[in-house]
Amino acid sequence: MVKERHSHIFQNNQLLTLSRSESVAPVEVTRRLTLRHVQSDFKTNALSTRNLVYCDDDVNSMLSSLCCVFMVAQAFALCPVRGITGRRAEDLSFTWRSIRVFYTIVVILALVVSLGFSFTWFLIVGFTFTTSGAIMFYVTGLTCCVLFLKLATKWPEVAMLWQQTEHNQIRYGYPTNLRLKIRAMTAVILTLALVEYVLSNANRMYIASQCSTGTFDLVRRYIMVTHRHVFGVIGYTTFMALFTSIVSVISSFYWSYADMFIMLVSIALASRFRLLNYHLKEVRGKVMPECFWRSAREDYNALSHLTSSVDSCVSSIVLLCFATNLFFICQQLLNSINRSLNTIQIVYFYVSFGYLLLRTIAMALYAASIYDESRVAKEVLYAVPAHSYQVEVHRFLIQVATDNVALTGLNFFPVTRTVLLTLAGTIVTYEVVLVQFGTTSDSSSSNMTALCLDLTTVHYIQ
Amino acid sequence: MVKERHSHIFQNNQLLTLSRSESVAPVEVTRRLTLRHVQSDFKTNALSTRNLVYCDDDVNSMLSSLCCVFMVAQAFALCPVRGITGRRAEDLSFTWRSIRVFYTIVVILALVVSLGFSFTWFLIVGFTFTTSGAIMFYVTGLTCCVLFLKLATKWPEVAMLWQQTEHNQIRYGYPTNLRLKIRAMTAVILTLALVEYVLSNANRMYIASQCSTGTFDLVRRYIMVTHRHVFGVIGYTTFMALFTSIVSVISSFYWSYADMFIMLVSIALASRFRLLNYHLKEVRGKVMPECFWRSAREDYNALSHLTSSVDSCVSSIVLLCFATNLFFICQQLLNSINRSLNTIQIVYFYVSFGYLLLRTIAMALYAASIYDESRVAKEVLYAVPAHSYQVEVHRFLIQVATDNVALTGLNFFPVTRTVLLTLAGTIVTYEVVLVQFGTTSDSSSSNMTALCLDLTTVHYIQ
Amino acid sequence: MVKERHSHIFQNNQLLTLSRSESVAPVEVTRRLTLRHVQSDFKTNALSTRNLVYCDDDVNSMLSSLCCVFMVAQAFALCPVRGITGRRAEDLSFTWRSIRVFYTIVVILALVVSLGFSFTWFLIVGFTFTTSGAIMFYVTGLTCCVLFLKLATKWPEVAMLWQQTEHNQIRYGYPTNLRLKIRAMTAVILTLALVEYVLSNANRMYIASQCSTGTFDLVRRYIMVTHRHVFGVIGYTTFMALFTSIVSVISSFYWSYADMFIMLVSIALASRFRLLNYHLKEVRGKVMPECFWRSAREDYNALSHLTSSVDSCVSSIVLLCFATNLFFICQQLLNSINRSLNTIQIVYFYVSFGYLLLRTIAMALYAASIYDESRVAKEVLYAVPAHSYQVEVHRFLIQVATDNVALTGLNFFPVTRTVLLTLAGTIVTYEVVLVQFGTTSDSSSSNMTALCLDLTTVHYIQ
Amino acid sequence: MVKERHSHIFQNNQLLTLSRSESVAPVEVTRRLTLRHVQSDFKTNALSTRNLVYCDDDVNSMLSSLCCVFMVAQAFALCPVRGITGRRAEDLSFTWRSIRVFYTIVVILALVVSLGFSFTWFLIVGFTFTTSGAIMFYVTGLTCCVLFLKLATKWPEVAMLWQQTEHNQIRYGYPTNLRLKIRAMTAVILTLALVEYVLSNANRMYIASQCSTGTFDLVRRYIMVTHRHVFGVIGYTTFMALFTSIVSVISSFYWSYADMFIMLVSIALASRFRLLNYHLKEVRGKVMPECFWRSAREDYNALSHLTSSVDSCVSSIVLLCFATNLFFICQQLLNSINRSLNTIQIVYFYVSFGYLLLRTIAMALYAASIYDESRVAKEVLYAVPAHSYQVEVHRFLIQVATDNVALTGLNFFPVTRTVLLTLAGTIVTYEVVLVQFGTTSDSSSSNMTALCLDLTTVHYIQ
Repeated sequence: MVKERHSHIFQNNQLLTLSRSESVAPVEVTRRLTLRHVQSDFKTNALSTRNLVYCDDDVNSMLSSLCCVFMVAQAFALCPVRGITGRRAEDLSFTWRSIRVFYTIVVILALVVSLGFSFTWFLIVGFTFTTSGAIMFYVTGLTCCVLFLKLATKWPEVAMLWQQTEHNQIRYGYPTNLRLKIRAMTAVILTLALVEYVLSNANRMYIASQCSTGTFDLVRRYIMVTHRHVFGVIGYTTFMALFTSIVSVISSFYWSYADMFIMLVSIALASRFRLLNYHLKEVRGKVMPECFWRSAREDYNALSHLTSSVDSCVSSIVLLCFATNLFFICQQLLNSINRSLNTIQIVYFYVSFGYLLLRTIAMALYAASIYDESRVAKEVLYAVPAHSYQVEVHRFLIQVATDNVALTGLNFFPVTRTVLLTLAGTIVTYEVVLVQFGTTSDSSSSNMTALCLDLTTVHYIQ
Repeated sequence: MVKERHSHIFQNNQLLTLSRSESVAPVEVTRRLTLRHVQSDFKTNALSTRNLVYCDDDVNSMLSSLCCVFMVAQAFALCPVRGITGRRAEDLSFTWRSIRVFYTIVVILALVVSLGFSFTWFLIVGFTFTTSGAIMFYVTGLTCCVLFLKLATKWPEVAMLWQQTEHNQIRYGYPTNLRLKIRAMTAVILTLALVEYVLSNANRMYIASQCSTGTFDLVRRYIMVTHRHVFGVIGYTTFMALFTSIVSVISSFYWSYADMFIMLVSIALASRFRLLNYHLKEVRGKVMPECFWRSAREDYNALSHLTSSVDSCVSSIVLLCFATNLFFICQQLLNSINRSLNTIQIVYFYVSFGYLLLRTIAMALYAASIYDESRVAKEVLYAVPAHSYQVEVHRFLIQVATDNVALTGLNFFPVTRTVLLTLAGTIVTYEVVLVQFGTTSDSSSSNMTALCLDLTTVHYIQ
Repeated sequence: MVKERHSHIFQNNQLLTLSRSESVAPVEVTRRLTLRHVQSDFKTNALSTRNLVYCDDDVNSMLSSLCCVFMVAQAFALCPVRGITGRRAEDLSFTWRSIRVFYTIVVILALVVSLGFSFTWFLIVGFTFTTSGAIMFYVTGLTCCVLFLKLATKWPEVAMLWQQTEHNQIRYGYPTNLRLKIRAMTAVILTLALVEYVLSNANRMYIASQCSTGTFDLVRRYIMVTHRHVFGVIGYTTFMALFTSIVSVISSFYWSYADMFIMLVSIALASRFRLLNYHLKEVRGKVMPECFWRSAREDYNALSHLTSSVDSCVSSIVLLCFATNLFFICQQLLNSINRSLNTIQIVYFYVSFGYLLLRTIAMALYAASIYDESRVAKEVLYAVPAHSYQVEVHRFLIQVATDNVALTGLNFFPVTRTVLLTLAGTIVTYEVVLVQFGTTSDSSSSNMTALCLDLTTVHYIQ
Repeated sequence: MVKERHSHIFQNNQLLTLSRSESVAPVEVTRRLTLRHVQSDFKTNALSTRNLVYCDDDVNSMLSSLCCVFMVAQAFALCPVRGITGRRAEDLSFTWRSIRVFYTIVVILALVVSLGFSFTWFLIVGFTFTTSGAIMFYVTGLTCCVLFLKLATKWPEVAMLWQQTEHNQIRYGYPTNLRLKIRAMTAVILTLALVEYVLSNANRMYIASQCSTGTFDLVRRYIMVTHRHVFGVIGYTTFMALFTSIVSVISSFYWSYADMFIMLVSIALASRFRLLNYHLKEVRGKVMPECFWRSAREDYNALSHLTSSVDSCVSSIVLLCFATNLFFICQQLLNSINRSLNTIQIVYFYVSFGYLLLRTIAMALYAASIYDESRVAKEVLYAVPAHSYQVEVHRFLIQVATDNVALTGLNFFPVTRTVLLTLAGTIVTYEVVLVQFGTTSDSSSSNMTALCLDLTTVHYIQ
């Protein structure tokens, strides 16, 4: 009597069935059984781990970690998606008929109005760095709000995929202290943004108090000076003062928030790659069964797929962040060679510029960390011992070598560390050109009166 | 008695024949049969689909879709190939002895004459942005016409290959609404071009009416001002006025048409990749027989081959489009810092510049979409389950990873999204340099008389 | 009784021997025999072809084709290698003790002396475009001569490798009309260089005749004006006049010759790849035995090895060519915005600049053609039918995809079409900067006297 | 009775065991035995070689070679690691509580104080090239010291890995004359640095003697002029003069040393790759057993791993070197167009600039040589005969083709030859911009008094 086993050899065109008699050497059988045992053991562990971690590690899931970030966003009418405080992705949903979306649309309309004022002012005054700065400021705010609205429509689906990926990879657990890290990050960045904003307003308030030559009260003067793009077009009314102040605060917030959002999403994504890499590094140089490599590859592919899904949602925001930051850094540099500023303004300039630079660098580095982490597996795969180098390892290596796992700027460029280098090069080149050829034709702001009028320049680049 | 089956294992140097007794397990046989069944079923479906779609989907074939585009071209003496209204690629043919080619050659001669006038004017007046613009304008027109003539000689062959590819891949059907999309696109772009052209002429006509100080009638003055490169060299005659007006219209058309042509061909090509990708995405993560992957790979390779064939015809036109658009965008930017323009001119400038920018971006993005679509298959291949990862899948992946499927600018650069980024960088750099250092030495056009004389600047960049 | 055949399966770690009984199906045996037959047939053909072609096709071998190029070189003391007129690479040899090397060293010393004069003049007059041009001119000449001397020491070995590669690939024959092409090319380029040189001298002679204000005879004035770097340092003597004229002619020749040499070597190399590609394209999509692919891959690898050997000899010359041409193109552009030139000078300028540009482009394109041709095999390999896709095909594909077959500029950059694009970008940027900011501080050469003195500028860029 | 052997075929998902009767052909057995014999012979040789070389070749190990380099470093408070004179990596250790670390921290504090003075001076005088140069000078020194302290904490571990790699690859022996080469290199560079430093001080001393108009002694004047960033803030005291002189010497040394360190580490690393390549090239085109390729691949991977370990320690120093050198080269170029310098200063300028340029190029080329050497294996792998092309060779090739073995600048860019090209491009562009637009607003230093005051400019760029 003959028993048969069938194996599909890695072959050219046909499926080949090999049948042979029951004469397998005992040692081999043992080995195979051991492997199978390891494998099932592995799975059992994974399942038991799942039950364990669900209780106390769950807070580090993406949903729970990013929860507070979305709550802050919704306070400012961004990302109007329902159920962000829920613990399951199934709770998330987006409908056009909701109070949140209504709020968002109101803000969008307000931004459109403000942009309209800026543009009218631009047509009146002509092209200067103040007017173009004002337009850029509100264009950024408006675009940001619209892009986050678009993101809201897609987020429930992406969150579902993310949660599913987390559950499938429950054996790696959740990233340690992810929620804490994200909350701390949020707190630090928002505090810095607030400090910078308060400082800039205090500064301007002080200067407004200096140039009080008329009968206006301080606040009115301050607001008129700060929002010249509105009150250079229409007369002063309390309603417009309130309106334009609120819109300005919101737009300032958006600019900081977009960077922060990219940063935090990148941290969450990169931490998942880091978990996988940690487990891969542990088996560096060890003989592992093929099933191990298969599941590792599938996990890697799932993360790669998740990254490209997230990217399809946020890539436009990434591009917006880079473009806006580059624009305002260059504008700040232009201000930097304007030597007629007083000490207070210089100190404020350095604080503001340092904050902007730091935020841009942090955002770029965190976004690039996804790419960096996705490369790490390669080194482990090169070190797989010859005995356990099989199809799955080869396939894994090919994927790591040819796949491009990274956030992108609207698919125009992948966000790697090279982007930061290019950015640095661009900024340095611009600075060299500026230093080499002195200031632009815009040589005003030399006396106090001009300062009172040109304060807005400083404003839009906060 | 012993039956034998022979299989060629994927091996090193020798063909290995394995023979063994008829002891294949029933389950395996069944599986093999099932696969074969699926495969033949697949083919039957494909054939029946072919019969079905030939009737009503055929209008979305490349030939039928691009038919109107070629008709428009031939009205302006471009691409003088016979049989463009036919439904089969076999109807297309090119012979030098045809009325179409004669028409084309007449236009080429006319363009050569106009270019001669421009060059003579350049030698008389010297290097200014007006004269170099005039030369560039007619060089573009002439090159365009010659390149389309060259294209015509190759097109029948390429169309044949395209049709054959479509027939071989009939199981994917034809791209939905391709003809409609292309016709709508053609209509929109040509309308915009017309609007821009009429606007520019109306604008110039109005200004010509303003500076009427002599006894000339309006039209004559208008033509003399508009075509200074001719009437700055010889005296005014009605024949030359007519001649130069027609040549100018044709050359303007060519410039718009070349961009549009690249756009529409790219849409047609990318839609074929999209069809294939759609079918690949449907089987994402599913176990498929190797024959499925083989045919998918062969289809991909056929499209890749088609792309490189099309590219060998149109790559010179692609380079021409990019070079010309970049030149005229930079020239427009130079005009933009010329502050002595009146309101009408400013409005016209924004319309004209916006149209030019939009067209360039659209052209670059559509051309890049071929490359983008050709990358999509990679993601599906990474997700092929371990069970069905065989040689064909590996080969497919290697091809997608190492092949460069894209239109190119005369083989100097592949047209990907990066090209647009580089273009944007170049333009922004140029604008920064311009803004930073003010206008050029060419500081004329300040009063109305100068405007009357310098109108041609605006003309050549329409 | 049992016969055995052994096959080494493509396996992981151990060599596996399969033994089985003589039960191979007849059809398979037949197939194997056919393959073997085809193969031996192939080889027989190759051998008979070899005998045939040795007689009349031999003239198109590299040695015979490049023979005249080296003869021209040796007339000007370049590449002092023995036996260049021989038909076999074995005839080539290099010894330091030969009349050729002595001649070369004499020329090198003369160039060093001239460079010394230029440098002294530079220290006297200071940094101007005339002095830096003179230094660059002689540095180029000197470096060129030294590099060709270094090339001579390596050439016999490379020629041997090249000849051996040709003999191993005798079944592809020799490139059609290679010798004719190279001779025609040499003739055209040298004629153009001569025309340009004569024109430039006639031009200067004419101007020298114009500014005759003293008692000097024409030739003396001409030489003093042309070689100011010498006669600005020491007084006029007939010996120095002769010496400096000869050195100047030789240095001019070197500059043209280096470009031409790179061009012709590239043509010869690319033609070998073209031969291979021609034979590969013939079997596009056909089922071929693995031995066919193995020999094709080995031939490809031999050509790749040959390319890198040639590159190790000529890469420094390639870098020199690119650097020198870029420098002189930029200097010519600087002259181009110098508007005080008369008509004769303008015409001469366009001829000279056109020749320089054309030569640079031709050199870059021909050198890049090696890379282009080395990519062609990829397309054929993608189209190999599934049945005959075996290890050798895969290996071939991997090599084509990962190998970088190209000449390089001293290993700093591979010479592909991208280099030309970068070059064009650099030149256009430089021109834009020049046009935008007018002439340099060097605003002399406005009247005839200055022209007489500054003629040398024009001289060094011929 | 049936004996069985089992082999694991390179297959898809299952381990396949083939069992067959004892009918292996004698020839095959012989072959297998031979291979095994070769292999064990190989190992025996390796072991005997190990015993041999331990005695006299050991001096060329990394530890022994770099020993003197670290001794020089510790004399200047860099890299405070214990046991650098030991012959084994186990002797190396780092503890925070050591006299070396204390010394380092004292120097760091001194640098912080100097930087504080420079910054105060910057705030007083404002942004000039002198003040920014002073700040950059001490920032470089401080960063360098901190980075080497950080390096010291990691070095024992890296040295251990390096030593282990050397022992595992003892069959390749040690690089010939590595210690000699490194010592000679150290001597040459430090001598050059000393010459340059002495020259610059002699030069300044001479000028200080020229402008003696008061009652100060020469040394005091010299020090006050040289260290204006200190004595422009506080009054002259002997202690501060001594302090600032020592700190200045140390900081100057750091700048030279960092470049040298990268250079020497690169030489040591590249020499290991060269050893491996030498052994690979010897078997070019020969049939080798798979075990040979396996061990070669593992050795390559070990070196790749070692490179990335070293890189993780020194990448920040690499970035610092490139950034600093680029900054000071550009500053020197800015000085170069300052035409009011006298002859002594010009000569000093050329010596100083030449030294800086040479050091930068040497550093970049040596660092890039690691990458260059890591590519060499590819060519050997392409030439592996078809018979011995097995999984290990394929895997090796894939690794060489996809791995990026190079030092990096803080992971922002790999240090390849391209970096040098980019650097050259940047510098040339900067120079062109400078020459094209003349000097900056900083047009002082025309008379002797100004020279006495502005000497510091020259100082900081030594």
